[in-house]
Amino acid sequence: MSVKTMDDLFVETLKDTYYAEKQILKALPAMSKKASHSELKHAFDNHLKETEKQVQRLEEVFNSLDVAVRGKKCEAMEGILAEAKHHLDDIEDKKILDAGIISSAQSVEHYEICRYGTLVEWAKNLGHADAARLLEETLQEEKKADEMLTAIARSVVNKDAEQAA
Amino acid sequence: MSVKTMDDLFVETLKDTYYAEKQILKALPAMSKKASHSELKHAFDNHLKETEKQVQRLEEVFNSLDVAVRGKKCEAMEGILAEAKHHLDDIEDKKILDAGIISSAQSVEHYEICRYGTLVEWAKNLGHADAARLLEETLQEEKKADEMLTAIARSVVNKDAEQAA
Repeated sequence: MSVKTMDDLFVETLKDTYYAEKQILKALPAMSKKASHSELKHAFDNHLKETEKQVQRLEEVFNSLDVAVRGKKCEAMEGILAEAKHHLDDIEDKKILDAGIISSAQSVEHYEICRYGTLVEWAKNLGHADAARLLEETLQEEKKADEMLTAIARSVVNKDAEQAA
Repeated sequence: MSVKTMDDLFVETLKDTYYAEKQILKALPAMSKKASHSELKHAFDNHLKETEKQVQRLEEVFNSLDVAVRGKKCEAMEGILAEAKHHLDDIEDKKILDAGIISSAQSVEHYEICRYGTLVEWAKNLGHADAARLLEETLQEEKKADEMLTAIARSVVNKDAEQAA
Protein backbone atom coordinates (compact mmCIF):
# COMPACT_ATOMS: atom_id res chain seq x y z
CA MET A 1 0.00 0.00 0.00
CA SER A 2 1.33 3.40 -0.93
CA VAL A 3 -0.22 6.59 0.38
CA LYS A 4 0.09 9.45 -2.10
CA THR A 5 -2.55 11.95 -0.99
CA MET A 6 -4.26 13.06 2.22
CA ASP A 7 -7.38 11.32 0.92
CA ASP A 8 -5.38 8.07 0.70
CA LEU A 9 -4.19 8.53 4.29
CA PHE A 10 -7.75 9.29 5.41
CA VAL A 11 -9.11 6.13 3.75
CA GLU A 12 -6.28 3.96 5.09
CA THR A 13 -7.01 5.22 8.61
CA LEU A 14 -10.72 4.56 8.09
CA LYS A 15 -9.88 0.96 7.13
CA ASP A 16 -7.68 0.58 10.22
CA THR A 17 -10.49 1.89 12.41
CA TYR A 18 -13.09 -0.32 10.73
CA TYR A 19 -10.95 -3.40 11.38
CA ALA A 20 -10.42 -2.26 14.98
CA GLU A 21 -14.16 -1.84 15.58
CA LYS A 22 -14.84 -5.31 14.20
CA GLN A 23 -12.25 -6.77 16.58
CA ILE A 24 -13.84 -4.89 19.47
CA LEU A 25 -17.24 -6.34 18.52
CA LYS A 26 -15.73 -9.80 18.94
CA ALA A 27 -13.97 -8.98 22.23
CA LEU A 28 -16.76 -7.19 24.12
CA PRO A 29 -18.96 -10.22 24.90
CA ALA A 30 -16.07 -11.94 26.77
CA MET A 31 -15.38 -8.76 28.73
CA SER A 32 -19.04 -8.47 29.69
CA LYS A 33 -19.21 -12.16 30.60
CA LYS A 34 -16.18 -11.93 32.90
CA ALA A 35 -17.28 -8.65 34.54
CA SER A 36 -18.77 -9.06 38.03
CA HIS A 37 -20.14 -5.63 38.95
CA SER A 38 -23.54 -5.24 37.35
CA GLU A 39 -22.79 -1.59 36.41
CA LEU A 40 -19.77 -2.76 34.45
CA LYS A 41 -21.57 -5.64 32.74
CA HIS A 42 -24.33 -3.22 31.79
CA ALA A 43 -21.79 -0.71 30.42
CA PHE A 44 -20.21 -3.39 28.21
CA ASP A 45 -23.58 -4.61 26.95
CA ASN A 46 -24.54 -1.03 26.09
CA HIS A 47 -21.22 -0.40 24.41
CA LEU A 48 -21.65 -3.52 22.31
CA LYS A 49 -24.86 -2.07 20.85
CA GLU A 50 -23.12 1.28 20.42
CA THR A 51 -20.19 -0.41 18.63
CA GLU A 52 -22.59 -2.13 16.20
CA LYS A 53 -23.92 1.33 15.32
CA GLN A 54 -20.39 2.69 15.02
CA VAL A 55 -19.51 -0.04 12.51
CA GLN A 56 -22.60 0.92 10.46
CA ARG A 57 -21.60 4.57 10.70
CA LEU A 58 -18.14 3.76 9.31
CA GLU A 59 -19.83 1.88 6.45
CA GLU A 60 -21.86 5.04 5.75
CA VAL A 61 -18.62 7.03 5.71
CA PHE A 62 -17.08 4.62 3.15
CA ASN A 63 -20.25 4.90 1.06
CA SER A 64 -20.27 8.70 1.27
CA LEU A 65 -16.75 8.65 -0.22
CA ASP A 66 -17.63 6.04 -2.87
CA VAL A 67 -14.97 3.76 -1.46
CA ALA A 68 -15.46 0.00 -0.97
CA VAL A 69 -16.11 -0.95 2.66
CA ARG A 70 -12.98 -2.76 3.75
CA GLY A 71 -10.87 -3.22 6.88
CA LYS A 72 -7.10 -3.31 7.13
CA LYS A 73 -5.31 -5.23 9.86
CA CYS A 74 -4.86 -2.91 12.82
CA GLU A 75 -1.84 -4.16 14.75
CA ALA A 76 -2.41 -1.61 17.51
CA MET A 77 -5.88 -2.94 18.33
CA GLU A 78 -4.66 -6.54 18.06
CA GLY A 79 -1.99 -5.77 20.66
CA ILE A 80 -4.41 -3.92 22.93
CA LEU A 81 -6.89 -6.79 22.81
CA ALA A 82 -4.16 -9.41 23.34
CA GLU A 83 -3.27 -7.61 26.59
CA ALA A 84 -6.93 -7.47 27.54
CA LYS A 85 -7.13 -11.24 27.06
CA HIS A 86 -4.16 -11.75 29.39
CA HIS A 87 -6.07 -9.84 32.08
CA LEU A 88 -9.08 -12.08 31.59
CA ASP A 89 -6.87 -15.18 31.88
CA ASP A 90 -4.42 -14.13 34.61
CA ILE A 91 -6.62 -12.59 37.29
CA GLU A 92 -8.61 -14.96 39.46
CA ASP A 93 -10.16 -12.66 42.06
CA LYS A 94 -13.34 -11.26 40.53
CA LYS A 95 -13.10 -7.81 42.08
CA ILE A 96 -9.52 -7.34 40.95
CA LEU A 97 -10.45 -8.73 37.54
CA ASP A 98 -13.02 -5.94 37.15
CA ALA A 99 -10.30 -3.34 37.79
CA GLY A 100 -8.12 -5.07 35.17
CA ILE A 101 -10.94 -5.28 32.64
CA ILE A 102 -11.69 -1.57 33.04
CA SER A 103 -8.03 -0.73 32.50
CA SER A 104 -8.03 -2.80 29.28
CA ALA A 105 -11.32 -1.33 28.08
CA GLN A 106 -10.01 2.18 28.63
CA SER A 107 -6.98 1.48 26.47
CA VAL A 108 -9.40 0.35 23.75
CA GLU A 109 -11.43 3.55 24.18
CA HIS A 110 -8.34 5.78 24.13
CA TYR A 111 -7.14 4.24 20.88
CA GLU A 112 -10.53 4.94 19.36
CA ILE A 113 -10.76 8.47 20.75
CA CYS A 114 -7.40 9.18 19.21
CA ARG A 115 -8.27 7.65 15.81
CA TYR A 116 -11.71 9.28 15.55
CA GLY A 117 -10.23 12.63 16.69
CA THR A 118 -7.74 12.45 13.82
CA LEU A 119 -10.37 11.26 11.32
CA VAL A 120 -12.75 14.11 12.23
CA GLU A 121 -9.99 16.71 11.72
CA TRP A 122 -8.96 15.23 8.38
CA ALA A 123 -12.56 14.84 7.16
CA LYS A 124 -13.26 18.51 7.89
CA ASN A 125 -10.06 19.67 6.21
CA LEU A 126 -10.72 17.51 3.16
CA GLY A 127 -14.27 18.89 2.85
CA HIS A 128 -16.02 15.58 3.63
CA ALA A 129 -18.79 17.17 5.68
CA ASP A 130 -21.03 14.08 5.96
CA ALA A 131 -18.10 11.91 7.01
CA ALA A 132 -17.00 14.50 9.58
CA ARG A 133 -20.50 14.59 11.12
CA LEU A 134 -20.74 10.79 11.37
CA LEU A 135 -17.24 10.41 12.79
CA GLU A 136 -17.83 13.20 15.31
CA GLU A 137 -20.93 11.38 16.55
CA THR A 138 -18.85 8.28 17.27
CA LEU A 139 -16.04 10.34 18.81
CA GLN A 140 -18.46 11.77 21.36
CA GLU A 141 -19.80 8.28 22.15
CA GLU A 142 -16.28 6.94 22.73
CA LYS A 143 -15.45 9.83 25.06
CA LYS A 144 -18.62 9.17 27.05
CA ALA A 145 -17.84 5.44 27.22
CA ASP A 146 -14.38 6.24 28.61
CA GLU A 147 -15.81 8.65 31.21
CA MET A 148 -18.41 6.05 32.19
CA LEU A 149 -15.64 3.48 32.81
CA THR A 150 -13.71 5.98 34.98
CA ALA A 151 -16.88 6.68 36.95
CA ILE A 152 -17.58 2.96 37.51
CA ALA A 153 -13.95 2.36 38.54
CA ARG A 154 -14.08 5.24 41.02
CA SER A 155 -17.49 4.53 42.48
CA VAL A 156 -17.36 0.79 43.00
CA VAL A 157 -14.64 -1.29 41.41
CA ASN A 158 -11.39 0.13 42.81
CA LYS A 159 -12.70 0.28 46.38
CA ASP A 160 -13.89 -3.33 46.27
CA ALA A 161 -10.67 -4.45 44.62
CA GLU A 162 -8.54 -2.97 47.41
CA GLN A 163 -10.63 -4.72 50.00
CA ALA A 164 -10.02 -7.94 48.11
CA ALA A 165 -6.29 -7.14 48.07
CA MET B 1 2.23 -14.62 35.81
CA SER B 2 -0.68 -14.68 38.18
CA VAL B 3 -2.22 -11.55 39.65
CA LYS B 4 -3.63 -12.12 43.12
CA THR B 5 -3.85 -8.63 44.63
CA MET B 6 -4.40 -5.04 43.48
CA ASP B 7 -0.72 -4.44 44.27
CA ASP B 8 0.18 -7.25 41.83
CA LEU B 9 -1.99 -5.66 39.16
CA PHE B 10 -0.44 -2.26 39.85
CA VAL B 11 3.10 -3.65 39.53
CA GLU B 12 2.25 -5.62 36.36
CA THR B 13 0.86 -2.45 34.79
CA LEU B 14 3.97 -0.53 35.86
CA LYS B 15 6.12 -3.15 34.10
CA ASP B 16 3.97 -2.90 30.96
CA THR B 17 4.34 0.89 30.99
CA TYR B 18 8.10 0.71 31.63
CA TYR B 19 8.53 -1.59 28.62
CA ALA B 20 6.34 0.73 26.54
CA GLU B 21 8.40 3.81 27.47
CA LYS B 22 11.62 2.01 26.52
CA GLN B 23 10.14 1.12 23.13
CA ILE B 24 9.09 4.74 22.64
CA LEU B 25 12.65 5.87 23.45
CA LYS B 26 13.84 3.69 20.56
CA ALA B 27 11.12 4.87 18.17
CA LEU B 28 11.24 8.64 18.70
CA PRO B 29 14.55 9.38 16.90
CA ALA B 30 13.20 7.86 13.64
CA MET B 31 10.02 9.91 13.95
CA SER B 32 12.02 13.09 14.52
CA LYS B 33 14.35 12.27 11.62
CA LYS B 34 11.48 11.72 9.19
CA ALA B 35 9.51 14.81 10.33
CA SER B 36 9.77 17.79 7.98
CA HIS B 37 8.12 20.69 9.81
CA SER B 38 10.62 22.16 12.24
CA GLU B 39 7.92 22.56 14.94
CA LEU B 40 7.24 18.84 14.75
CA LYS B 41 10.90 17.83 14.77
CA HIS B 42 11.41 20.09 17.77
CA ALA B 43 8.41 18.57 19.57
CA PHE B 44 9.81 15.04 19.06
CA ASP B 45 13.29 16.04 20.24
CA ASN B 46 11.78 17.62 23.36
CA HIS B 47 9.59 14.60 23.98
CA LEU B 48 12.62 12.31 23.72
CA LYS B 49 14.24 14.17 26.64
CA GLU B 50 10.93 14.09 28.50
CA THR B 51 10.62 10.34 27.89
CA GLU B 52 14.10 9.77 29.33
CA LYS B 53 12.94 11.52 32.51
CA GLN B 54 9.71 9.50 32.50
CA VAL B 55 11.70 6.26 32.40
CA GLN B 56 13.74 7.45 35.40
CA ARG B 57 10.54 8.42 37.18
CA LEU B 58 9.16 4.91 36.66
CA GLU B 59 12.41 3.53 38.11
CA GLU B 60 11.85 5.75 41.15
CA VAL B 61 8.34 4.34 41.45
CA PHE B 62 9.67 0.74 41.38
CA ASN B 63 12.26 1.73 44.03
CA SER B 64 9.64 3.41 46.21
CA LEU B 65 7.75 0.10 46.23
CA ASP B 66 10.86 -2.01 46.83
CA VAL B 67 10.19 -3.86 43.59
CA ALA B 68 12.92 -4.76 41.09
CA VAL B 69 12.93 -2.48 38.03
CA ARG B 70 11.70 -4.66 35.21
CA GLY B 71 9.68 -4.34 32.02
CA LYS B 72 7.12 -6.76 30.65
CA LYS B 73 6.40 -7.07 26.95
CA CYS B 74 3.66 -4.61 26.06
CA GLU B 75 1.88 -5.98 22.99
CA ALA B 76 -0.25 -2.87 22.71
CA MET B 77 2.74 -0.55 22.32
CA GLU B 78 4.42 -3.00 19.94
CA GLY B 79 1.33 -2.89 17.75
CA ILE B 80 1.04 0.88 17.93
CA LEU B 81 4.70 1.33 16.98
CA ALA B 82 4.46 -1.27 14.18
CA GLU B 83 1.69 0.87 12.66
CA ALA B 84 3.80 3.99 13.14
CA LYS B 85 6.61 2.31 11.22
CA HIS B 86 4.27 1.52 8.33
CA HIS B 87 3.47 5.23 8.09
CA LEU B 88 7.17 6.06 7.96
CA ASP B 89 7.67 3.49 5.19
CA ASP B 90 4.51 3.94 3.11
CA ILE B 91 4.16 7.70 2.75
CA GLU B 92 6.46 9.40 0.31
CA ASP B 93 5.18 12.99 0.28
CA LYS B 94 6.83 14.78 3.19
CA LYS B 95 3.89 16.97 4.10
CA ILE B 96 1.49 14.03 4.15
CA LEU B 97 4.06 12.01 6.07
CA ASP B 98 4.04 14.64 8.84
CA ALA B 99 0.26 14.25 9.17
CA GLY B 100 0.71 10.46 9.38
CA ILE B 101 3.52 10.72 11.93
CA ILE B 102 1.39 12.98 14.14
CA SER B 103 -1.49 10.53 13.96
CA SER B 104 0.87 7.70 15.05
CA ALA B 105 2.46 9.78 17.79
CA GLN B 106 -0.96 10.65 19.16
CA SER B 107 -1.91 7.00 19.41
CA VAL B 108 1.29 6.50 21.43
CA GLU B 109 0.37 9.44 23.68
CA HIS B 110 -3.20 8.23 24.17
CA TYR B 111 -2.02 4.79 25.24
CA GLU B 112 0.26 6.42 27.79
CA ILE B 113 -2.39 8.88 29.00
CA CYS B 114 -4.68 5.94 29.60
CA ARG B 115 -2.05 3.81 31.39
CA TYR B 116 -0.76 6.64 33.60
CA GLY B 117 -4.34 7.70 34.39
CA THR B 118 -5.06 4.19 35.65
CA LEU B 119 -1.75 3.95 37.53
CA VAL B 120 -2.33 7.28 39.32
CA GLU B 121 -5.80 6.16 40.47
CA TRP B 122 -4.52 2.80 41.70
CA ALA B 123 -1.45 4.32 43.41
CA LYS B 124 -3.68 6.75 45.32
CA ASN B 125 -6.13 4.03 46.32
CA LEU B 126 -3.32 1.72 47.44
CA GLY B 127 -1.77 4.48 49.56
CA HIS B 128 1.42 4.80 47.45
CA ALA B 129 1.62 8.58 47.75
CA ASP B 130 5.14 8.99 46.31
CA ALA B 131 4.32 6.78 43.36
CA ALA B 132 1.06 8.67 42.75
CA ARG B 133 2.90 12.02 42.70
CA LEU B 134 5.56 10.79 40.26
CA LEU B 135 3.03 9.14 37.95
CA GLU B 136 0.80 12.23 37.99
CA GLU B 137 3.76 14.34 36.89
CA THR B 138 4.24 12.11 33.83
CA LEU B 139 0.49 12.00 33.13
CA GLN B 140 0.41 15.80 32.86
CA GLU B 141 3.44 15.77 30.53
CA GLU B 142 1.79 13.20 28.27
CA LYS B 143 -1.42 15.24 28.09
CA LYS B 144 0.58 18.35 27.16
CA ALA B 145 2.53 16.40 24.52
CA ASP B 146 -0.76 15.26 22.97
CA GLU B 147 -2.18 18.81 22.97
CA MET B 148 1.03 20.11 21.42
CA LEU B 149 0.71 17.56 18.58
CA THR B 150 -2.90 18.61 17.95
CA ALA B 151 -1.81 22.26 17.88
CA ILE B 152 1.00 21.55 15.40
CA ALA B 153 -1.34 19.51 13.20
CA ARG B 154 -3.92 22.29 13.19
CA SER B 155 -1.56 25.20 12.71
CA VAL B 156 0.71 23.89 9.99
CA VAL B 157 0.73 20.25 9.07
CA ASN B 158 -2.82 19.50 7.95
CA LYS B 159 -3.08 22.64 5.81
CA ASP B 160 0.18 21.89 4.04
CA ALA B 161 -0.75 18.25 3.60
CA GLU B 162 -3.99 19.13 1.84
CA GLN B 163 -2.18 21.41 -0.51
CA ALA B 164 0.14 18.51 -1.27
CA ALA B 165 -2.93 16.31 -1.86
